[in-house]
Amino acid sequence: MRMPAVGVWLVGAHGSLGATVVLGARAVARRLVADVGLVTATPELKGLPLVAVGDLTFGGWDIAPTGLVAQARALARDDSAVPESLVAELEADLRTVEARVRPGFADGGGPANRPSRRQAFVPRGEPLAATIDRLGGDLEGFRRDQGLDTVIVVNVASTEPSVALSGDHQRLDRFQRVIQENRRALVTPSMVYAYAALERGFPYVNFTPSIGVAVPALQELALKHNVPICGSDGKTGETLVKTVLAPMFRARNLEVLSWEGFNILGGGDGRVLDDPRHKRTKLRSKGGVLAGALGYAPHAGVRIEYVPSLGNWKTAWDFVHFRGFLGTKMSMQFVWQGCDSILAAPLVLDLIRLAEFAQRKGEAGPMTHLASFFKDPLGVTEHSFAEQFRLLTDYVARHARNGRTTRKVARPR
Amino acid sequence: MRMPAVGVWLVGAHGSLGATVVLGARAVARRLVADVGLVTATPELKGLPLVAVGDLTFGGWDIAPTGLVAQARALARDDSAVPESLVAELEADLRTVEARVRPGFADGGGPANRPSRRQAFVPRGEPLAATIDRLGGDLEGFRRDQGLDTVIVVNVASTEPSVALSGDHQRLDRFQRVIQENRRALVTPSMVYAYAALERGFPYVNFTPSIGVAVPALQELALKHNVPICGSDGKTGETLVKTVLAPMFRARNLEVLSWEGFNILGGGDGRVLDDPRHKRTKLRSKGGVLAGALGYAPHAGVRIEYVPSLGNWKTAWDFVHFRGFLGTKMSMQFVWQGCDSILAAPLVLDLIRLAEFAQRKGEAGPMTHLASFFKDPLGVTEHSFAEQFRLLTDYVARHARNGRTTRKVARPR
Amino acid sequence: MRMPAVGVWLVGAHGSLGATVVLGARAVARRLVADVGLVTATPELKGLPLVAVGDLTFGGWDIAPTGLVAQARALARDDSAVPESLVAELEADLRTVEARVRPGFADGGGPANRPSRRQAFVPRGEPLAATIDRLGGDLEGFRRDQGLDTVIVVNVASTEPSVALSGDHQRLDRFQRVIQENRRALVTPSMVYAYAALERGFPYVNFTPSIGVAVPALQELALKHNVPICGSDGKTGETLVKTVLAPMFRARNLEVLSWEGFNILGGGDGRVLDDPRHKRTKLRSKGGVLAGALGYAPHAGVRIEYVPSLGNWKTAWDFVHFRGFLGTKMSMQFVWQGCDSILAAPLVLDLIRLAEFAQRKGEAGPMTHLASFFKDPLGVTEHSFAEQFRLLTDYVARHARNGRTTRKVARPR
Amino acid sequence: MRMPAVGVWLVGAHGSLGATVVLGARAVARRLVADVGLVTATPELKGLPLVAVGDLTFGGWDIAPTGLVAQARALARDDSAVPESLVAELEADLRTVEARVRPGFADGGGPANRPSRRQAFVPRGEPLAATIDRLGGDLEGFRRDQGLDTVIVVNVASTEPSVALSGDHQRLDRFQRVIQENRRALVTPSMVYAYAALERGFPYVNFTPSIGVAVPALQELALKHNVPICGSDGKTGETLVKTVLAPMFRARNLEVLSWEGFNILGGGDGRVLDDPRHKRTKLRSKGGVLAGALGYAPHAGVRIEYVPSLGNWKTAWDFVHFRGFLGTKMSMQFVWQGCDSILAAPLVLDLIRLAEFAQRKGEAGPMTHLASFFKDPLGVTEHSFAEQFRLLTDYVARHARNGRTTRKVARPR
Repeated sequence: MRMPAVGVWLVGAHGSLGATVVLGARAVARRLVADVGLVTATPELKGLPLVAVGDLTFGGWDIAPTGLVAQARALARDDSAVPESLVAELEADLRTVEARVRPGFADGGGPANRPSRRQAFVPRGEPLAATIDRLGGDLEGFRRDQGLDTVIVVNVASTEPSVALSGDHQRLDRFQRVIQENRRALVTPSMVYAYAALERGFPYVNFTPSIGVAVPALQELALKHNVPICGSDGKTGETLVKTVLAPMFRARNLEVLSWEGFNILGGGDGRVLDDPRHKRTKLRSKGGVLAGALGYAPHAGVRIEYVPSLGNWKTAWDFVHFRGFLGTKMSMQFVWQGCDSILAAPLVLDLIRLAEFAQRKGEAGPMTHLASFFKDPLGVTEHSFAEQFRLLTDYVARHARNGRTTRKVARPR
Repeated sequence: MRMPAVGVWLVGAHGSLGATVVLGARAVARRLVADVGLVTATPELKGLPLVAVGDLTFGGWDIAPTGLVAQARALARDDSAVPESLVAELEADLRTVEARVRPGFADGGGPANRPSRRQAFVPRGEPLAATIDRLGGDLEGFRRDQGLDTVIVVNVASTEPSVALSGDHQRLDRFQRVIQENRRALVTPSMVYAYAALERGFPYVNFTPSIGVAVPALQELALKHNVPICGSDGKTGETLVKTVLAPMFRARNLEVLSWEGFNILGGGDGRVLDDPRHKRTKLRSKGGVLAGALGYAPHAGVRIEYVPSLGNWKTAWDFVHFRGFLGTKMSMQFVWQGCDSILAAPLVLDLIRLAEFAQRKGEAGPMTHLASFFKDPLGVTEHSFAEQFRLLTDYVARHARNGRTTRKVARPR
Repeated sequence: MRMPAVGVWLVGAHGSLGATVVLGARAVARRLVADVGLVTATPELKGLPLVAVGDLTFGGWDIAPTGLVAQARALARDDSAVPESLVAELEADLRTVEARVRPGFADGGGPANRPSRRQAFVPRGEPLAATIDRLGGDLEGFRRDQGLDTVIVVNVASTEPSVALSGDHQRLDRFQRVIQENRRALVTPSMVYAYAALERGFPYVNFTPSIGVAVPALQELALKHNVPICGSDGKTGETLVKTVLAPMFRARNLEVLSWEGFNILGGGDGRVLDDPRHKRTKLRSKGGVLAGALGYAPHAGVRIEYVPSLGNWKTAWDFVHFRGFLGTKMSMQFVWQGCDSILAAPLVLDLIRLAEFAQRKGEAGPMTHLASFFKDPLGVTEHSFAEQFRLLTDYVARHARNGRTTRKVARPR
Repeated sequence: MRMPAVGVWLVGAHGSLGATVVLGARAVARRLVADVGLVTATPELKGLPLVAVGDLTFGGWDIAPTGLVAQARALARDDSAVPESLVAELEADLRTVEARVRPGFADGGGPANRPSRRQAFVPRGEPLAATIDRLGGDLEGFRRDQGLDTVIVVNVASTEPSVALSGDHQRLDRFQRVIQENRRALVTPSMVYAYAALERGFPYVNFTPSIGVAVPALQELALKHNVPICGSDGKTGETLVKTVLAPMFRARNLEVLSWEGFNILGGGDGRVLDDPRHKRTKLRSKGGVLAGALGYAPHAGVRIEYVPSLGNWKTAWDFVHFRGFLGTKMSMQFVWQGCDSILAAPLVLDLIRLAEFAQRKGEAGPMTHLASFFKDPLGVTEHSFAEQFRLLTDYVARHARNGRTTRKVARPR
C-alpha cells in the first residue's frame, strides 16, 4: 500500500507552538531525537498504519510575515527547553517552511493581533467571502505545488475572545448568509479558517480553545464534505492531570469539597491570556472538566496569571480539599512544571497522523476517539482520561492491521 | 432473599485501623455519618446485593488485652480526625466489641510486639498446631455464639518482618508438616492467622503488607476449603495516586526518568515501620507498582520515615522527573496529606462486604476483581488503577441484580 | 511595683479572632495551655515587666448582639483547631465577656455588615459625633465599672473597604469638622472607633488592614492625648514568611524575577475578602512588602480566593522565580497551612501587653518597635523581619529591668 | 593604592564547581554576564576595596588530568544551566586554566576517587611529608610564575569520608609527628591540602564538608603563619533557607515539632554522597543547624538521595510541623529547585575576595565575619542567617573606605 503524501497547514505558524511542531517534526525526520512524547509511538497505537512524521510537508498562515525561526531560537535561548545546537542544525528546514507561510486573517485588535505586526502582511478591507476564497486557494495551491494527497489544517494560533453563538451559527445555510453579507461581528478568525479548510475537503484540527469547528454550522459543513474534524483545546498539563485524578476521587467515593488551580505562565500565550476577554475563552474550556469527571460540581476555581519570566514554562499548583470517611477533611496538592510548546507539539503531530488516517478510512465529522487529546472534546461528554483513552484503544482495535487487536487489557495472572 | 448474618474478626483489633473500622461501622449503623469513602456506596457498585454495614458483628484478636476504645479516643483527641463527641456517643458499642477481643499469637520481639504488653494475655510456649486450633476455636465460637452465617477474617495488624519463602511454603502438605513439627522460624503470625481462618472455611482479607495468604500453600488451603481470599496491602494514599498517574505518563509516552517518594507518618504504624526489618516488608509491597504501571522501571525510591508529631496523618511528597518531546526534562510533584486510618477503614468495610458476597456466590481463591484495593494484588499483575477498577465494574456487571449492567462506559454524545 | 489593672476592648468581639483572643487568654489564665505562640513569652522579651495575660479583663463592640461563644465552638467543631473540651471548660468565662459586648458602629452595606444581623443591635440614624460620644462612654464605663487603670482598644473586626484620603484627613481640626458636619462618606468605622479611643486617652491597636489610626489626623489626636498606637494588619502567615525570605534573596544578590502568591481561605474573613472592595484594602496592605524588603519591585502578584471548606485554615502557595549567577533561572516554592485565628490571637495579646507597657512609660504616637507584628507598620519603612525584630529587642534592651540587656547577639565562639 | 595580583588555587579544579567558578570568573571578567549572585557586589559590601573578579588568576589540583572544559560543557548541555554559546566563547580561557591543573593527592578508594581515573596522574607511594612538600611547591611555583602577591587556596573537591579526631589532631606538634611518621589512617586529603597551603602562608577556604582546616592542629598552623582561614561547607540551598526560617519560628514562639528535609540531586556530588561514608560527613554538617537556630532540637531528619536525571539541579522538600497557640498543630513546606554549582560558584568568588582582603589587613585564623557563607561556620555558634550576615556588615562598617559605614539599618520613617 502506498502511503499518501500529506501536507500540514498551521494556523499561527509563526507562534511558539507552530515553530515547535515544525522543529520537532524535522528533528524526528532527521533522527536527531527519539519519538518520546508521541502518543502514536506507543505500543497501544503501533497497529495503525499511519503516515510517518518525517513524510509530512509543512506550510501555514500567520498574521505576521516572519517568526517561525525566531520562535525556535527563543525556545532554546530563552526557555532552555532544547539545545541551541539542535535549532542550528535544523535552521535550513525551518527557513523552508517559514518561506511558505502566507497571510492569514485578522479582525479587530487585541493582544494577539497587533496592527503594527500585520499591517503590510494581511490584506485589509477584504470581505469575509473573499477571505475564505483566498485562504481556500492557499490550501489548494499548497496541495498542488507540493503534490500532496491531502492537507491537514491545524489551528495552533493564540486564543481568540469568545463570542456568543446565535441562531445564525446553528445551520449551515444561515451561516453562509452571514458570510455573504459580511456580518463580521458574528464571525471570528477561527471560523473563517475552519470554513476555508472544510469547504475544500481538508480535515481540521482545533488545538486551541477558540470556537472554530465547534460551531454547529461548521460541523454540518464537515459532514457535507465528508471531512473528519476534532477539538477543542489540547489537554497538555494541569487539565490532563485533573482528568486523571478526579476519577480516582470518584471511584473511591471521596467527596471533593474544593479544587483550586493556579496557573502561571509567560510567553506569547501568557500575554494573550492576560487579556480578560481571551482568558474567558480559555477558562470556559478548562472549567467543565471537573464536574464531568466527578459527577458533581465542587467549589472550584481556575486562575491563569501572566508571569513573563517563566516564558514557555507553565507552572500550575492545584489544591484539592476532600472529605473522607467519618467526615474527615484531607487534602492533596500537585505542582506541574511543564514546557507548554514541548508538551503540545507531539500531540499536534499525533492528531495530524490520526486525522489523515480517519480521512483515508472515509470517516467524517467529530473524531470522538480523539477525546483524550482535548480539554473540551467535540462530541464526547466523558471527561475521565482513562475512559477517553479507551475510546482510542477501542478504535485501534477495530482498525488494526490484520484485524489483530493490540488493546491493553487488565491482566489477571 | 434473606441477607445473611455476617461476622467480622479483626486481626489487630486494638490497633488504630481496627478501632476506626469498628467506630466507622457503628457510626454508619447509627446513621451518625454519611457513607462517604465507601466504594461499595458508589453508583458503580449499587447493583450488588451486599450485606449492610450496620448488620456486621465485630470481634477480633490482639496481643494486648485492651486498646480499641483508647485508639478511637486518640483519633479524636490527638489526631483531630473525628469529633470527640462522636467517639463519646459510640463508646458503649466500642466497649462491647473490645470485650470480645481474644488473645492472638505473637512470636519473637519487634516494635509491634513488645513482651510487656502481651505477657498476661497471649499464651506462651504453645506449639503452632495448638495455636491454630485455639484460634480456629475462637472463630467457630464467635460464629456460634452470635448466630452468624459466616465470619470474614481481616488482617489489620502491624506489618511483620519479611521472611524468605522456601520449598516448604510452596505446597500445602509440606507446610502442614512445618506446622506439625513446630518449625517456628518458617512461620509468621500472618500465616498462622490465615491458616486458622481458611481451615474453618472463613474468607480472609489481608489488608497489610505481611505475607499471610500470599503463601502458595495457603492459597492451596483456600481452594481446598472453597474460600475466597484477597490482599495484599491496602492502597490508600501515595501508592493509589501513583497507580493513577503512572498510566497517564505511559499513555502520553512521557518517559519517567525518576520517581522519588517520601512518606512521613507517626502513630503505631509509623513506629513499627521505623524498624528496618518491618520497613522492608512495606517497601517491597510499594516498590513493584511503578514498573507494573509504566512498563519499565525508572529510577525510583520510596522512603518512609517516622515523624511522631504527625500521628495518623501520613504526608507524602512525590517528585516525578520526566522527559518529553525533543528530550526536554520536566517535572511534576504531589503532596498527599491524609489520615491513614480514615482512608483505610471504609476500604476494609468494602472488602468485608465483597468477600462475603463472593463466598455467597461460591467463589474461591484470589478475588482478582478486588485488585484496585491493593498495592500488591493477589493474582493480578495489572497496576493501572483504572484497569483494576474495570475488573471490579466488569464483575459487578456480571453479578448485578437482574443481570442488568450498571457499568460506567465512555459516552460519545 | 503594683501591676496595673488592664482592660481590653475588642472591636469585632464576636468575630473568630475576637473569640480566639478571649478563649486563649482565659486558657492561659487558667493554665490549661502553655504560652506557645506568645512573642512576649520568649527569652528575648522576658526582661520587660508586662501585665500578665491572666490579669486582662475583656469587653468589646460588635454589630451583632451575639457570636463570641458560637465562634469559639466553631473553632473546635468546624475547624478542628482546638479540642471541644477546652471550649466547654471555658464556656462560663466566654459568656461573661459576651455579656459585656456593646453595639458598635456600622455604616453602609457590605458582606461584613449585613443589616439583618445588626438591625436591633446597632443604633440607626445616629450622627457621627453622637456615635463617638456613645462609644467613648462605653470605654469609660468599662474602665470605671471594672476598676481598671487603662483600657487597650484593639481592632480585630473584618476588613472594611478602602477609602481615598483627602486633605480633610490630614489635619485634626479639619477632620473634627468632618465629624461635626456628619460627612459620612469620608469616615469609615475604623476611624470612628479609633477616634473614640484616642479622645479618651486609650491606646489603640489596629490589627486589621482597615485604615483606622493610619489617618494622619488621628495620629495627631494620639499625640495630643499622649497615647501610643500601632498597626496595620497583623503579619501572621504568608506575608510573615515573605519578609523573612526576601531579605535572604537580597543578601545573596539573587534577583527575584517574579513572586506569585495565592491565598485560599474560608471563614468569615474569607467571605468578606471575596468582595472586591474589601479585598483591595487587604491586597494593598500585603503588596508593599516585597519592594520594601528587596529594594526593587519584581513582577509580583497576591491573590486571595474564598474557599469555604477551608474555614479558618488559610493555605498559601508562593512561587518565587529568581535569577542567579550566569543568568541561570531557579525557583523556590512554599506552602503555608495555618489556622488564621490561632496564629493571630497570641500576637493580639502581645500587642495589648506591649501597648500598655508603652503607655505606662509615657510613650505616645506610633510604636515603631512593634513593626515586626505588622504587614504595613505605622511609622516604619523597613520590611525585613529580622531588622524589624531587632527594633523590638533594642527596645527591650533600653527598657529591661535594672537596665540589663537580654538582647540576643551573634555569638563568635 | 595598587591592587595586589591574586591567584586562586582550586582543590578539585576539574569538578563541576571548579569549572563553574572559572567559567563564571571569566564571564564576569569579559563582561558577558552581570554580577548577579555575588554577595560582594551588593550595596552592603561596596565599601570594601576588594580585588576585581576579572583580575584573578586560576590554577589548581585534581586527581584526574582533565575535566574542567568538559564539566563546563556539561553544565550547558546536560543541565541547561548556561547557554552553550557562553561556554564556547570562553573555551580558550578555560583551556588555559585546565593546562595549569597539577596532580593532587588521593588516598584509598571511594566513589570520588576511582583509581582508574588518577592512575597516571597522581604519584603513588609518596609519603605524606613528601606530598605536602610537592603541593607546597606547586603553590609557590604558581605564585612565582604568574607574578602573584598571594594565592588563595579553595577546597571545592568532593566530600571525603569523615574521620574520628584524636589527640593527635589537637596540637600542631603532634600532628606534625603524624605526618613525619606517615600515619596515613589519621590524615585525610583535605588535611594535606590545608597543611600545604597554610605552611606556605596562603589563606585557605574550605567550601566542602570535609574536615580540612577545622582540625585544631591546622588552626594552630594558620595562626603560626598568620593566615586567615574559613569553612566549612558552603551554605547554598536548603540549609540556607533553614537558617532563615528557623529564627522566624523562634521569634514567634512557634514550637517546631518536626523538620524533615529530603534532598535529591544527581551529578558527581550526588554520586559521591550516595556512598554512606561520604554522606555521613555531609549530614553532620547539615544537622547542627536547626538546634543552633531554634535553641532546642526538634525531631528532624535530613536525607540525601542520588537521582541521576537531576544532574546539578538539587531539589529539596522540607516539611515543618509546628505547634502554635492553644496547642494547634500547623505546617509549612518548601521546595527548593536550584542549580548547585551556579549557586555555589559566586560564593566561592566572594570568599576568595574577602580572604585576600583579610590577609591584606593582617588578619589571621578563623574569619568569623564569613559565618553566613557556611553551614558549619568555623569559630561561630550562631546559626541565624540574619545574625550571621550582621557579623559581615559590622565587619564592613569597621573596614569601609574612609571609615564610612554603609551598614543597612532598620529605618523608622
